[in-house]
Amino acid sequence: MSAPVLIRAAVAADVPAIVALIRDLAEYEKAAPGALSLTEDLLRDALFGPRPSVEGVVATHGTDVAGYALFFHNFSSWRGKRGVFLEDLYVRPELRGQGVGKALFGEVERIAAARGCARVEWIVLDWNQTAIDFYKSQGAAPLEGWTVFRKNL
Amino acid sequence: MSAPVLIRAAVAADVPAIVALIRDLAEYEKAAPGALSLTEDLLRDALFGPRPSVEGVVATHGTDVAGYALFFHNFSSWRGKRGVFLEDLYVRPELRGQGVGKALFGEVERIAAARGCARVEWIVLDWNQTAIDFYKSQGAAPLEGWTVFRKNL
Repeated sequence: MSAPVLIRAAVAADVPAIVALIRDLAEYEKAAPGALSLTEDLLRDALFGPRPSVEGVVATHGTDVAGYALFFHNFSSWRGKRGVFLEDLYVRPELRGQGVGKALFGEVERIAAARGCARVEWIVLDWNQTAIDFYKSQGAAPLEGWTVFRKNL
Repeated sequence: MSAPVLIRAAVAADVPAIVALIRDLAEYEKAAPGALSLTEDLLRDALFGPRPSVEGVVATHGTDVAGYALFFHNFSSWRGKRGVFLEDLYVRPELRGQGVGKALFGEVERIAAARGCARVEWIVLDWNQTAIDFYKSQGAAPLEGWTVFRKNL
């Protein structure tokens, strides 16, 4: 890399770049047609509106956003404590293999620990062996024996 | 049932009863020894402290808490909207089969819809066929092909 990669909290000016990367990630994850109804306005409001529902960190490479992570707090009734749920973590393909994902994951973990959270959780596509290997290398493990259920409203 | 079952938002006086039911649920779910570090103080603070991290509804049967649901908001980057994550839903064994779980689930769904949420999600133990059948009867479906990952802090 010609420029260093820096990790910082997302700001409103990052929204278009993050939305573009979310679209890249959704395509990579083979999202069904119509599954992506995100807009820049929706993400701006969710991150920076009067009642934020998600937080973001970005990795920047010069003036480009090289990757991002979005997360929010969950809660464990067994632990009685908040945790962090990592909604997305994505690094531009051309900037992989240089520790950007590790730095983004580490920043989310650092924030979670600083806030006294019990754990960080997220979901991974079973065919995404690259992601599975990466997360295992970061000390994470699959939660065996549980399945996510969903009801769309 | 001799008395009707009523559904309402949890209040601070419900905390001891909810903690007792969380312990029952954790035992039913075969929680590992030590996995349950919840206390009444932790749940009271999480539900009713200055910065709540979870919300609760209870089903009451006379003066008893017959069941409860705990939930918080998650966020979908594909939808760009909040959802509801159902952390727990539990009904005392002796009060099952009378629609209490359905009423609790319906109340959570109603709250989610009223707040403009995209969906309700939760996780289910793969051996808990009773729960799986119940949730399918409520219009939910398993999210096939995804696995929850966790890193404890």
